Amino acid sequence: MFEALFQTFDEPESGVALSARLAALREELLRRKLSGFIVPRADQQQNEYVPPSDERLAWLTGFTGSAGMAIVLAREAALFVDGRYTLQAAQQIDASAWRVAPLVDPPPESWLEQHLTAGDCLGFDPWLHTSAAVEKMAALCARVGAELVPLDSNPIDAVWVGRPAPPLGPVSVHGLQFSGESEAAKLERIRHEIGRLKADALVLSDSHAVAWSFNIRGADVGHTPLPLSYALVPKTGRPTIFIDGRKLSNSARDHLEQTADVAEPEALTPALSALAKGGAAIALDNATAADALARLISGAGGKVVRGNDPVALLKAVKNNTEIEGTKTAHRRDAVALARFLAFIDREAPKGALTEIDAVEALETFRRDTGALKDVSFPTISGTGPNGAIVHYRVTRKSNRRIAPGDLLLIDSGAQYEDGTTDVTRTIAIGEPSAEMRDRFTRVLRGHIAIARAVFPDGTTGAQLDSLARQFLWQAGLDFEHGTGHGVGSYLSVHEGPARISKLGTTPLQRGMILSNEPGYYKADAFGIRIENLELVVAADIAGAEKPVNGFETLTLAPIDRRLIDLSMISIKELAWLNEYHARVRAEVRPHLDEATKIWLDAATAPLTR
Amino acid sequence: MFEALFQTFDEPESGVALSARLAALREELLRRKLSGFIVPRADQQQNEYVPPSDERLAWLTGFTGSAGMAIVLAREAALFVDGRYTLQAAQQIDASAWRVAPLVDPPPESWLEQHLTAGDCLGFDPWLHTSAAVEKMAALCARVGAELVPLDSNPIDAVWVGRPAPPLGPVSVHGLQFSGESEAAKLERIRHEIGRLKADALVLSDSHAVAWSFNIRGADVGHTPLPLSYALVPKTGRPTIFIDGRKLSNSARDHLEQTADVAEPEALTPALSALAKGGAAIALDNATAADALARLISGAGGKVVRGNDPVALLKAVKNNTEIEGTKTAHRRDAVALARFLAFIDREAPKGALTEIDAVEALETFRRDTGALKDVSFPTISGTGPNGAIVHYRVTRKSNRRIAPGDLLLIDSGAQYEDGTTDVTRTIAIGEPSAEMRDRFTRVLRGHIAIARAVFPDGTTGAQLDSLARQFLWQAGLDFEHGTGHGVGSYLSVHEGPARISKLGTTPLQRGMILSNEPGYYKADAFGIRIENLELVVAADIAGAEKPVNGFETLTLAPIDRRLIDLSMISIKELAWLNEYHARVRAEVRPHLDEATKIWLDAATAPLTR
Repeated sequence: MFEALFQTFDEPESGVALSARLAALREELLRRKLSGFIVPRADQQQNEYVPPSDERLAWLTGFTGSAGMAIVLAREAALFVDGRYTLQAAQQIDASAWRVAPLVDPPPESWLEQHLTAGDCLGFDPWLHTSAAVEKMAALCARVGAELVPLDSNPIDAVWVGRPAPPLGPVSVHGLQFSGESEAAKLERIRHEIGRLKADALVLSDSHAVAWSFNIRGADVGHTPLPLSYALVPKTGRPTIFIDGRKLSNSARDHLEQTADVAEPEALTPALSALAKGGAAIALDNATAADALARLISGAGGKVVRGNDPVALLKAVKNNTEIEGTKTAHRRDAVALARFLAFIDREAPKGALTEIDAVEALETFRRDTGALKDVSFPTISGTGPNGAIVHYRVTRKSNRRIAPGDLLLIDSGAQYEDGTTDVTRTIAIGEPSAEMRDRFTRVLRGHIAIARAVFPDGTTGAQLDSLARQFLWQAGLDFEHGTGHGVGSYLSVHEGPARISKLGTTPLQRGMILSNEPGYYKADAFGIRIENLELVVAADIAGAEKPVNGFETLTLAPIDRRLIDLSMISIKELAWLNEYHARVRAEVRPHLDEATKIWLDAATAPLTR
Repeated sequence: MFEALFQTFDEPESGVALSARLAALREELLRRKLSGFIVPRADQQQNEYVPPSDERLAWLTGFTGSAGMAIVLAREAALFVDGRYTLQAAQQIDASAWRVAPLVDPPPESWLEQHLTAGDCLGFDPWLHTSAAVEKMAALCARVGAELVPLDSNPIDAVWVGRPAPPLGPVSVHGLQFSGESEAAKLERIRHEIGRLKADALVLSDSHAVAWSFNIRGADVGHTPLPLSYALVPKTGRPTIFIDGRKLSNSARDHLEQTADVAEPEALTPALSALAKGGAAIALDNATAADALARLISGAGGKVVRGNDPVALLKAVKNNTEIEGTKTAHRRDAVALARFLAFIDREAPKGALTEIDAVEALETFRRDTGALKDVSFPTISGTGPNGAIVHYRVTRKSNRRIAPGDLLLIDSGAQYEDGTTDVTRTIAIGEPSAEMRDRFTRVLRGHIAIARAVFPDGTTGAQLDSLARQFLWQAGLDFEHGTGHGVGSYLSVHEGPARISKLGTTPLQRGMILSNEPGYYKADAFGIRIENLELVVAADIAGAEKPVNGFETLTLAPIDRRLIDLSMISIKELAWLNEYHARVRAEVRPHLDEATKIWLDAATAPLTR
């Protein structure tokens, strides 16, 4: 009945069979007279989703998490992962060959400090690390008398038999009806920023930035319509886009050539060298530019201007077309969500549904809209103890039956051409416990505190983050992730630079879209998260002495009323919830079938206390 | 009847008569072949209160604010001040000789960029700037082709006729009954921190750190019992304290010599040079160490380890003796505050009191405790429009009558040997307006949100700051200062490193004392601030999954009930206020005269809605 076309439920491959790969790499290192090699989980642009051709860490170690690093020495090999992946890493690697160590506290440098000795030569691929990361590593090597050596070619690629080819996803034009601003107008604004950086040119080392600037989308990685590419934008004159020509249809090429020269990826380094030889100051992005780019520019006599890619901020502030588009996308997504939530309420209490069934049903309802391009990330569908695993991804093996008395946490999103969605709902199956309702109500109050927040221009996400946590803190509880991340416009569902987190130092600007997703996780028992996307809008307040902003909620889906402890919630919070549900009803109901309408009316009926 | 012994109400001297000083300085610069000179408002240790011998900026410009900088070039001279001092600076300087420019946005570097030309030699006194400040300035000079030149002696001192001698305030021993930890035990902990910094020695360039480490207090600057001094603490072996021997009684010297060698201030640079010549790694404090110290160490072959003085954090976390001391100090202070607030309530409505009368009365009540060592800062006593000036200091000229219909904002504190206090109350004289009550209630709700906050270990002041602002933000209002600062134990009333502010990145630890002082200021109309000191304590919460903390309020003084709009306040907030007032009554009432008891009973009577 339902099926998933955009996501799979396979087990990752197991590690033991991979030990031969580690031996082959060590031989290669020996040939190159290297004491060791660093293997980050990264491509050349520090992308969140990397193409299979860049999954070197997974190929070598078996570990398939979204963050990590390995260091291979002659006798020791360590895989560094953060807390959420400790368990998974241990299951995936060959424990006789690999040690698992922390990625953050202490960082890999402290492991290196113990295992490197004076005179060692530690190799790294300068295309896969940022300069900041290399500097940290180099400082450590210097301290122990070892040398950090940039390599011309990656030794893994030399021994990786059957390495997939780089992806060749076709490029499509992201028309004005979606982008709302021409490439020429965007370039004008980018050139202004290059002037502010006192630079002669800017390298767009982030494919998202290229996609936004030139109004194109691609299909090179999963779940994000990314056209892997670079661009070089001089302060005056035509920019150049470096992209595999096989990805370009004639019309896509025509579109690009109206504002830019198009060149093959191999042309990037000669072009940068030529520019640098003239002594140009070239701006590189701290977060995504490979150290190799900085070395190339400095080596050729140019000046590297390090900073944050100004396109990241331009891209984060959505224009009216993008805002109208995302509202349309959210209304469309809301129909699928209502059908899905009604389906779960109807079927799950019977005890026959599993986590995978939920994923397949939701994706199917989204495909039924006729507009689904992809899911925006693999759906997190966790019931019972699986709900407490923050980055859970269900596999055929982990798949759990949704049982009465449990909660189902479902975090999902869609890629539509007019907008990207991301929504989490927590659903009571049968009768929830008092503890579940207490925790859910605290999470909901934090969610509402963000949704209702009013804050002056210049306020950062770090300043708002504690509003989401205060009611959990009061009970000695918390959640170990940020409260919200930026979201792209038919681009990445995780988009910088703004976020609601204690690390969010970017002021929130009108037009930004951020998630609002506090949660609570009781290990081995249940997980709760309530997530809506919020648009930053001007708050219209009589007598205001300064410009103040607030959030307009984009996501339209009922929040489970059965999980609310009404004795814990204030009149104003309840009013917010009832108004939100009234809005969901008004906007979504006309597009539903009769059965779902009946369900929606009940799910959004006003609550009183 | 009342008088102030610890503070004055003089007008600062006016600028016009000072123009000859600028001319004399320019001649001196010419003699030294310098194009210009930078004059910070700073002593060698970046102290908040600087001794008269270091008031070079005030001597030269007439400007007496607590923050600022001047740059003198051959034809141009600019005084840089922040927003709160723009008006005062314009009044104090000779406008024909000086230009007033912003201290922060844009910074003085941008003024320099316009006025320096290639080949210029800009002098600075490396004892009066931190290395970070010098680096910023040097980068700017390099950009315009000018040179930033460290000077061996300060050219102002060469032309300052009648410059006061450095202060020689007597040093007293801060006994174990107040400090709660011996010097030997503190040194043990400091040495552990030196080890963590991987340094061979630590320079204590902050006199507060010297005072805390060696359990001494002094009398060199106003309102803070600071013994101006340095110390050099090697990782092993005896530390040396550098202090003018004339400040030491025999008993003070005996006390110090139990754990340290005592030397004259002039011995610091040779001692550092000697240590550096052996290649030692010497830790310097980013915030207070003069650039001259870094130059000295590097020049002699040593290694500078830059970081935050670890003593700042050790000092900020109070031990049980200090906590009991501050509680005693606050109960004592509360008696003076109750007498003062009763006096204002009785006398001010008659219309005969002024701002200065209020300052004198409050200081007199504090002296009546028999334990007052000093006020902890000049009292801010502002009524009507003066209340809206955040750093207002009343003078004979600005002194305003306290009139019915106005608010009186009074921010004051005391130095007692067992603790330092800091408290602000806003008092309604006669009938307050609806606007005043609205604003006061929003400020109070923010104050209560901080006082009631519960937060996990590791939470920073930046994460809590918005709790204090949320109710003002909701009305499009805000206040332009931090919510709270750390407070010393018979030391500075402004103590780092923790603070409640969007810049507060230090986690709050149990034992820290912070102010909680949201406010609201309506220019030319009125000012509101409510300030208590809060002690960070463990929060005892059943079922807590992680250690959580909260605040215990130290300050004990009624909050003006007449200014509260009860329709705006929640049941829980009202309960907090009633409980706080009940505590004030229970702790303070027994120590009051009959008339003040009657006043206190009324001022702390429970409110209901």
